[in-house]
Amino acid sequence: MLPDFAFFDAIAEAAARETLPRFRMPFTIDNKHAAGFDPVTEADREAERAIRTLIEERFPGHGILGEEYGDVGLDRDYVWVIDPIDGTRAFISGLPVWGTLVGLYHKGEAVMGMMDQPFTGERFIAEQGSAIVQRNGKVDLLRTRKGVGLEQAIMMTTSPFIFPDDLAPAYQRLEKQVQLARYGCDCYAYAMVASGHIDLVVETGLKAYDVGGLIPLVEQAGGRMTTWSGGRPEDGGNIIAAGSPELHEAAMAVLNQTD
Amino acid sequence: MLPDFAFFDAIAEAAARETLPRFRMPFTIDNKHAAGFDPVTEADREAERAIRTLIEERFPGHGILGEEYGDVGLDRDYVWVIDPIDGTRAFISGLPVWGTLVGLYHKGEAVMGMMDQPFTGERFIAEQGSAIVQRNGKVDLLRTRKGVGLEQAIMMTTSPFIFPDDLAPAYQRLEKQVQLARYGCDCYAYAMVASGHIDLVVETGLKAYDVGGLIPLVEQAGGRMTTWSGGRPEDGGNIIAAGSPELHEAAMAVLNQTD
Repeated sequence: MLPDFAFFDAIAEAAARETLPRFRMPFTIDNKHAAGFDPVTEADREAERAIRTLIEERFPGHGILGEEYGDVGLDRDYVWVIDPIDGTRAFISGLPVWGTLVGLYHKGEAVMGMMDQPFTGERFIAEQGSAIVQRNGKVDLLRTRKGVGLEQAIMMTTSPFIFPDDLAPAYQRLEKQVQLARYGCDCYAYAMVASGHIDLVVETGLKAYDVGGLIPLVEQAGGRMTTWSGGRPEDGGNIIAAGSPELHEAAMAVLNQTD
Repeated sequence: MLPDFAFFDAIAEAAARETLPRFRMPFTIDNKHAAGFDPVTEADREAERAIRTLIEERFPGHGILGEEYGDVGLDRDYVWVIDPIDGTRAFISGLPVWGTLVGLYHKGEAVMGMMDQPFTGERFIAEQGSAIVQRNGKVDLLRTRKGVGLEQAIMMTTSPFIFPDDLAPAYQRLEKQVQLARYGCDCYAYAMVASGHIDLVVETGLKAYDVGGLIPLVEQAGGRMTTWSGGRPEDGGNIIAAGSPELHEAAMAVLNQTD
């Protein structure tokens, strides 16, 4: 049996019980000094623990790939991909654009996903064939924005400085061609693509848990999400998400331009 | 008679009736093509109109400086400074980090101010001597974070690319010394300084209406907000806001370093 909306709700609520009370509370930052500035909060760890407990109880035969704890059964047909707080920098800055990400992979393909933002009360869920956002008891279908060319597109990325030297020129070419580029929104940017409020997200150096919960949101809302070379995005890496196949193609042409 | 919390509430609610229904609705963007990408929404204009109506009824002897309509009586003792939607780029991107800003100047000094974010339900108000944030019926005092040195500070700015050539090196020096720099939060960043979640905001090219509602929030919460040369910030320009006088001094020394 596969998970349903109610199971995703249960996961989101269990995680929110750990994250929300610690959001905007002082003294929860725990830097991993060895790796530079990489804040991991107690909220991160406790939320992942709560999510894993629910999954292990309900789907003991599934694998789990998480950010904070060890991986289990990655060779199984179904694998859950968990990022308890995507956007820890937003979290420690008090900004409500972080999210709890949970995706379900079947034989390596992301088939269901969720992003929950408990402070704003927004919960984005993509079950198979049905992508929705819930807020204040209201449910809306997720639909990307269509018919937007590069010159009208709104693009987001974590920061213009995340791109290594060999990729920066490609990103900069693309940034010059869009209408507006914004920085610093992590998972929230993909939710805005799925909701049809923005059109592109372009990032680099992502992990599977950064994208696993988001792929089904973007794809089932009508968008396209791949690596920069056009491959499946499930393992992370250099990622592009677009509101339509046409915009994806146009942006890919700019990213991969050779001259 | 001076305005009280109830009057700021009335202003915020009148503005939210114009902004919130248009937030995340398609086809409300009205670009000023002549000036590049400068979106001004119907929400912006209608909200300012609603705010001005309330002020003119209640305080007919006061002046008004607004973003969207003409200025009135800027030589009067009391002048209201209005930005109906600060962060129009966030607004059109679906991100809940824009705000409605209203400040009251007395003989040129910002004495009261408000930032309202109706999607998240956060309302920051500084009356004389009392700075608060209201949400879901709960009221908290605003207090900046103290005892934070540059090397622990979280800093925000609109974008690393807003700084003209003569100012960019100063900004970049400062960015290298802080723990974390984030981009793209407009007024919300100042509210996070006033709330003690971040420590510094550094920006350039601001107008009076970009800062008028925010100065009393930062100052009455215990922070310091000036121009980069240490002058009063009421007219905008190059602006720095810090959570404490000590951090302000340390950041100013880096910005104004000559060698």
